[in-house]
Amino acid sequence: MTTPPDVLDAADPLAAFRERFVLSGDLVAYLDGNSLGQLPRATVERLATFVEDEWGGRLIRGWSEGWVELPVTVGDELGAAVLGAAPGQTVLADSTSVNIYKLLHSAASVRPDRSELIIDATSFPTDRYLVDSVAHSRGLDVRWIEPDLVENVTPQLLATALSDRTAAVLLGQVDYRSATLLDLPGLTAQIHDAGAVVIWDLCHSAGAVPIELDSSDVDFAVGCTYKYLNAGPGAPAYMYVAKHHLAAATQPIAGWWSAADMFAMADHYDASSTITRMLSGTPPISGIIAVQEGVRLIAEAGIETIRTKSIALTEYLIERLDDAGFEIVTPRAADHRGSHVSIRHRDAKVITADLIRRGVIPDYREPDIIRLGLSPLTTSFAEVDAAVAVLIDVTT
Amino acid sequence: MTTPPDVLDAADPLAAFRERFVLSGDLVAYLDGNSLGQLPRATVERLATFVEDEWGGRLIRGWSEGWVELPVTVGDELGAAVLGAAPGQTVLADSTSVNIYKLLHSAASVRPDRSELIIDATSFPTDRYLVDSVAHSRGLDVRWIEPDLVENVTPQLLATALSDRTAAVLLGQVDYRSATLLDLPGLTAQIHDAGAVVIWDLCHSAGAVPIELDSSDVDFAVGCTYKYLNAGPGAPAYMYVAKHHLAAATQPIAGWWSAADMFAMADHYDASSTITRMLSGTPPISGIIAVQEGVRLIAEAGIETIRTKSIALTEYLIERLDDAGFEIVTPRAADHRGSHVSIRHRDAKVITADLIRRGVIPDYREPDIIRLGLSPLTTSFAEVDAAVAVLIDVTT
Repeated sequence: MTTPPDVLDAADPLAAFRERFVLSGDLVAYLDGNSLGQLPRATVERLATFVEDEWGGRLIRGWSEGWVELPVTVGDELGAAVLGAAPGQTVLADSTSVNIYKLLHSAASVRPDRSELIIDATSFPTDRYLVDSVAHSRGLDVRWIEPDLVENVTPQLLATALSDRTAAVLLGQVDYRSATLLDLPGLTAQIHDAGAVVIWDLCHSAGAVPIELDSSDVDFAVGCTYKYLNAGPGAPAYMYVAKHHLAAATQPIAGWWSAADMFAMADHYDASSTITRMLSGTPPISGIIAVQEGVRLIAEAGIETIRTKSIALTEYLIERLDDAGFEIVTPRAADHRGSHVSIRHRDAKVITADLIRRGVIPDYREPDIIRLGLSPLTTSFAEVDAAVAVLIDVTT
Repeated sequence: MTTPPDVLDAADPLAAFRERFVLSGDLVAYLDGNSLGQLPRATVERLATFVEDEWGGRLIRGWSEGWVELPVTVGDELGAAVLGAAPGQTVLADSTSVNIYKLLHSAASVRPDRSELIIDATSFPTDRYLVDSVAHSRGLDVRWIEPDLVENVTPQLLATALSDRTAAVLLGQVDYRSATLLDLPGLTAQIHDAGAVVIWDLCHSAGAVPIELDSSDVDFAVGCTYKYLNAGPGAPAYMYVAKHHLAAATQPIAGWWSAADMFAMADHYDASSTITRMLSGTPPISGIIAVQEGVRLIAEAGIETIRTKSIALTEYLIERLDDAGFEIVTPRAADHRGSHVSIRHRDAKVITADLIRRGVIPDYREPDIIRLGLSPLTTSFAEVDAAVAVLIDVTT
């Protein structure tokens, strides 16, 4: 017996956060915050002030008046509110792709005596392509894991690949298709037992799932900011490098922002001893400011409260989808699930187009998956209810 | 006998463009548009509309409604208005540092039988650091040129370094300290005669100096957009790859945006056959939009008209500096000079701070250089006149 959505919304401690966002009036339901999060009202104000007063008014003085520190200070805020990371280990920079590239090189550089990188076949394409590229350029081998999509990377499966040749393993905490949530602390410990290091891709988990990078002893992590962190299309990504790796982790895009003294214009490159060694060129200030606003909303709501609502939303959706007979390719156990729910349907592509025409926005992933993303700060139970009604309508 | 500045301003065909920018009211003179260009009024409007209507209103639909093409379409506009490049060869992406890294790998990949990279010691640090890094990772040697700062890279000097071992030469068209403008077509031809390829760093020339990449048969070029292109702090950079290199030029940051079909989520990476092969991750849409507004102002003013005013501004400034007895480290021949003028002074750092306190903004470069940047769309002759008066005052 499903509780009515209006009762669930009335009891939702995060319900008021919807008003903190610009909600698109033409939609029945926006279930794609896991691709592009909605626009915080505070960000509209903040960006306007930045453009006119800071760029327009302060011009080059803006750099010495605070911009230059933003990649690290906002990184620290993100670390505290979202990643479980103490200051000095997180930095905003570049795109997820560029950052994965830097971290793969960094990971290999701290395990110079090892010869293999491990990646799983269900990973997002960028992750797989970059593992291949970095392995090729460094003369390393790639060892592939081939998991079941929903079960994903289990300790048993990982054990078949780990060896004393393993330098690093790249894993996504939440699978971009199935939403499977991996055991980050457990798999990290297993990888360390093999003498290797781990890079966690947090794109589909950060901001929706509590993450404890420091206490889980994670080596490296990376993620984007335009999904549950609501920082806008193409906002900069972030990297986390555990403090004890900062001296040895070496990335090859050695721009002036990664140098020990960026304004020294020195003859030869000397990498910064801090997290700024992971930077390369001039960071995108407006993007970082948008990240800061998104992170502050997460901090205010609290990641545990967000997770509680995320579980309630996904449970509610799964119950409704089960009732209607859809094939769900997302784990049914809440502690193995992120914040989206995927269904498999042979007509997935056509159904997605029909849904969009009817004002319900999910997204489609090749070859047969429809993802329904639930963003705890912006998604209401009524919205989920309305979306399922339209989904049933377009499929029957 | 110097013409009075008000007479020069009255005769300036670009004078009205000043009103198209947000001018900081607290300044006597802003002579640092070569570090961070001023804010176009059109950009204020455009960014507000983008944030509220496009991101906020269209959400994920924005990608299929035009965002996805922006790196290439704005690249083409930049190519036409600023670079002398036909469509399909220019793309907006990442930072200058990341792009130099990609282009160095690309250049090496089209000359796989060659073993050396050439760089000059007066180059901007990022360029030098990245040549070292890429050479190291590919097992190439670096051959250094050691030019005089003002004379910079001459054909005679370049000839001493070029050989049948040379894979690629990285050169800055306008030197970031001396403003020396190199002979781009001539040096490109000389490099080709040696069987090598060239990468031109256009950071300090694009938007102030006419550039003809196609007709000069340039192989690769890169530059930033926050100087004379007025796109804001940390706006994305661009890359140019000549059409005939697109099939073979290979860069290693193989993200999904560089794949032949980015949404195929394919098992293995197949690089795009177009200029999108130079992309990596999700591009920063608000930054690209700001580039588009900046480029449109250049297109409207016309690069030849801009160059004519740039020469007039730098000539006027040099005359005034000569009269006051400053040591100028910028070429006196207009056709060897970009759009800034540098003076050398043992107290350069203190003088720069004094100037800023007095509302005149230049910038300082280690160890003893003060750069005075003249941006033809925003700098007036009266502003230069006022700046020199303050400079004389703080140094006597």
